[in-house]
Amino acid sequence: MSTKKKRVLILGGGFGGVYAAVHLQKLLSPQELEGIEIALVSRENYMVFQPLLPEVISGSVELNHVITPIRRMAPKAYLHTREVESVDPHQRVVTLSAGIDRLPLPLTYDHLVIAMGTQLDYSRIPGMREHAHPFKYLGDALYLRNQLVHVLECAEAESDPELRRRLLTFVVAGGGFSGVECIAEMNDFLREAIRAYHTISESDLRIILLQRGDRILPELTESLAAFAHRLLVKRGVAIPLGAGLKAVSADAAVIEDKKTGAEESIATRTTIATIPAGPHALIASLPFKQDKGRIVVDQQTEVPDWPGVWALGDCAAIQQVDGHTSPPTAQHALRQARTCAENIVASFRSQPKKIFQFTGLGKMGSLGRRSAVAEVFGIRLKGLIAWLFWRGVYVTKFPGLDGQVRLIADWILDAFLPRDITQLRLFHEEAVHREHFEAGETVFATGDFGDKVYFIVKGEATVERDGATVATLKNGDVCGEVALISNHPRNATVRAATALDTVVVSREAFQELLGCLPGMSRTMQELMRERLGRPLDLHEEMKNPVPAPARAPKE
Amino acid sequence: MSTKKKRVLILGGGFGGVYAAVHLQKLLSPQELEGIEIALVSRENYMVFQPLLPEVISGSVELNHVITPIRRMAPKAYLHTREVESVDPHQRVVTLSAGIDRLPLPLTYDHLVIAMGTQLDYSRIPGMREHAHPFKYLGDALYLRNQLVHVLECAEAESDPELRRRLLTFVVAGGGFSGVECIAEMNDFLREAIRAYHTISESDLRIILLQRGDRILPELTESLAAFAHRLLVKRGVAIPLGAGLKAVSADAAVIEDKKTGAEESIATRTTIATIPAGPHALIASLPFKQDKGRIVVDQQTEVPDWPGVWALGDCAAIQQVDGHTSPPTAQHALRQARTCAENIVASFRSQPKKIFQFTGLGKMGSLGRRSAVAEVFGIRLKGLIAWLFWRGVYVTKFPGLDGQVRLIADWILDAFLPRDITQLRLFHEEAVHREHFEAGETVFATGDFGDKVYFIVKGEATVERDGATVATLKNGDVCGEVALISNHPRNATVRAATALDTVVVSREAFQELLGCLPGMSRTMQELMRERLGRPLDLHEEMKNPVPAPARAPKE
Repeated sequence: MSTKKKRVLILGGGFGGVYAAVHLQKLLSPQELEGIEIALVSRENYMVFQPLLPEVISGSVELNHVITPIRRMAPKAYLHTREVESVDPHQRVVTLSAGIDRLPLPLTYDHLVIAMGTQLDYSRIPGMREHAHPFKYLGDALYLRNQLVHVLECAEAESDPELRRRLLTFVVAGGGFSGVECIAEMNDFLREAIRAYHTISESDLRIILLQRGDRILPELTESLAAFAHRLLVKRGVAIPLGAGLKAVSADAAVIEDKKTGAEESIATRTTIATIPAGPHALIASLPFKQDKGRIVVDQQTEVPDWPGVWALGDCAAIQQVDGHTSPPTAQHALRQARTCAENIVASFRSQPKKIFQFTGLGKMGSLGRRSAVAEVFGIRLKGLIAWLFWRGVYVTKFPGLDGQVRLIADWILDAFLPRDITQLRLFHEEAVHREHFEAGETVFATGDFGDKVYFIVKGEATVERDGATVATLKNGDVCGEVALISNHPRNATVRAATALDTVVVSREAFQELLGCLPGMSRTMQELMRERLGRPLDLHEEMKNPVPAPARAPKE
Repeated sequence: MSTKKKRVLILGGGFGGVYAAVHLQKLLSPQELEGIEIALVSRENYMVFQPLLPEVISGSVELNHVITPIRRMAPKAYLHTREVESVDPHQRVVTLSAGIDRLPLPLTYDHLVIAMGTQLDYSRIPGMREHAHPFKYLGDALYLRNQLVHVLECAEAESDPELRRRLLTFVVAGGGFSGVECIAEMNDFLREAIRAYHTISESDLRIILLQRGDRILPELTESLAAFAHRLLVKRGVAIPLGAGLKAVSADAAVIEDKKTGAEESIATRTTIATIPAGPHALIASLPFKQDKGRIVVDQQTEVPDWPGVWALGDCAAIQQVDGHTSPPTAQHALRQARTCAENIVASFRSQPKKIFQFTGLGKMGSLGRRSAVAEVFGIRLKGLIAWLFWRGVYVTKFPGLDGQVRLIADWILDAFLPRDITQLRLFHEEAVHREHFEAGETVFATGDFGDKVYFIVKGEATVERDGATVATLKNGDVCGEVALISNHPRNATVRAATALDTVVVSREAFQELLGCLPGMSRTMQELMRERLGRPLDLHEEMKNPVPAPARAPKE
């Protein structure tokens, strides 16, 4: 070929982006495809079928059966599994993050389709980024499943009633579809799983759904929402209405009563936030007109004044023919993708463009164990019939016959076989991470095994020995290094005096860094001399074995 | 109850440990169990059915279908999911690692069963710990599967032929059962998976099995091993006999010819070592008589001179009735567990003890896609019939009817549906880790995106600018920090002058630490002033945006 190929560049591997590629490869003839490259940029090489994500928590559906390889869905598209680093609509160049060759990849385009969805917005609630589990991506569902088994394992072995209660309390913030489906599956899973544990009974579980508004599922008709509320309560979920998440720490979820403003701290190790989605950071930097962080497009899904730039899905604001702005749901993204693909093909062929006609089919949500609510074409369904309808719709919507077969096989096996309670420890704390403490919370206590060192970034902490405060720590101070260097248990209790933000380094990373970071070893020597009142050979100290544990053997 | 319970404490959650608990709970009457606690210590809350682990690589069996929850197998036992920290056979106390309460847990015992298996021995080969993937635990199989998809994703987008070749080369070291089964499944998976990629063809794949000896599968009769060898070669696996692994780096596997001693470097990003198992570090510290790191026990599986201490499985050396030392296989561990459980019950009841009578049933190994080799009761099977036999044996041996049903369902679906090529990015490099380079290898090159900073622990490296060496770095030196602090691409090439060991800190962790580690910021300021010839405001520099990429856009 003498002429260079034109490129349609699609950003985003969710429903919108992937189906735009699927429709483009269907609509373009083989001859046209010789002159046009469809390129798709996605962080992952699979598309997540979001509606089934909650079922991964309970294990009704296998983790890798809620995803589909993008390469199989859109075999004629060219997939880049990288991040988008920047978009320059003036030069018509998109730059992708460095790949295995450590070089960023700039790509020019003729048409650009922006379908990047939303990003999590952690900024509004202190401690949310550090300690709340999100529930948006595939990894989140797997993480959550393992966290549930992890706390059961810990609670089984724990004799301190306060710590047990904290372990066996689960908080989900957000009473929309996402929060309700998530807590329903968690509740089902936990109540079945505890049968395999000796010391945990159903009454030990506290499963709490927080909803700031007057009722759950505000997206639905009131009678269906009330049905869902009653069912969840009957199945053991507590739903304190009018209560919003105020702060999160490793040990608690702080909630605030919407009316009285009263705060309450719920002791828990597991807070899940179906976090308010914010605009994508990259999109905010673009010169297109925006509405609440969404790119405003015309009814043909094209960005006004920027011919060849299109946007769709959750990151786009499209006015529907009924006058409403199209809501951020999968069914809308799917139809926008089709309209967008048709219009891109039309502009290649110099044909007239189409208008986005879809206004929505209905809404439905699963409530776990053989129950759901649905509102379709004005008809309201609830309970078993809604649940069968729910499953029927999603299995037919699932991309690919092989995926549908796997899904059905999972559902059949799930109906007969016990739930899996294995804990896959694939996740572990980052060697360097952040932790947030609320005022009064314990950072560590005298006698604890020294597993981490804390660097204070913001707030104040007190050091207590024998019940008396011996020092106050603030921004720039370090604590917890003595137990890591000397290998003795913690010799003091450190407590947050105010809300406290820290950077935390794990024992292993700290010892590795101490050995090789220029300046660190020297500073630590000085600090230890000051604190212990004697000079110290760091490397000799670290080699000392851990002394015998302080408490008596369990007999 | 007025008297305290006696405790049988079992260490290890593999076949040996779990089946010892299973037999004990069966053999002891409910009355006896009121006075005897069976306690089992396992790092994980599941038992891995090891023979099926290779099938997880190819996806014929789902990851969580090769494991069984220990709590369901041994419901009457008390499971501790912790690490064993120390064993004191004089005081009869075992101390477990700190749990969620950050306190170690000491446990007394009346009978101790040691079934801790073996540990990986990384010490013999430079770079093995840093860059070779082991293949022993469940996580290894999942990691490997994702690594295969990862390199395919990278190779698909890569135009540099040298880097492509490195990405598409796969090395497995070790031609025993474990290495053969692993490479067979890898080979099957890769050859099917590449059909979904545009730029990768079968002839691009190089899949290499290294075997130091004269033939693969030395455990088997020669004719069966020869059959396996021919089949693997026919399916595209290269098997250079007499070649052993000498060193591993991120970019290569160095192999050594056993006879000539000649070394060759195979450019690859994926080296799997079916690593020689070494004795468990904890076992080496115990006062029991040992044979090559295994605890010597009598034919009743009890440790001589230590009544009430038992050992079995891969960590025990048991003389069989035929005079051989019992080999480290699952079938032997299972039978030893039964003998051990019977003898513990006999000692509670003051009855005579039994002798371990089992001498082995045979050996078999899978070769992937509908072929296997087996040698049972002197009968030799190969090909399809051996494969059917292999599957039949393992499905009946799999613990629990539910597990067997899941396994059969997976096998049925696998026969008809395409293989899953999704990449679950659950693994990422530790923020602080080690990397090994062989002499001549590039640490980073001018123009690269700066993703890491390197601290040299051992060896020497040269810094090159415009083709000339401008500096030599050695132990205690740091390199790569300029690009991380200034956000510019690498301004020099750093190359290993000798074998080089480094501690590596990721961009994110480095920037976090720079902000909060006392002494580090000061030292880095000094270093940067020295290197750049001007003072620097670290925090201002880090905020600067990444400059436009150096290369022209792809059109």
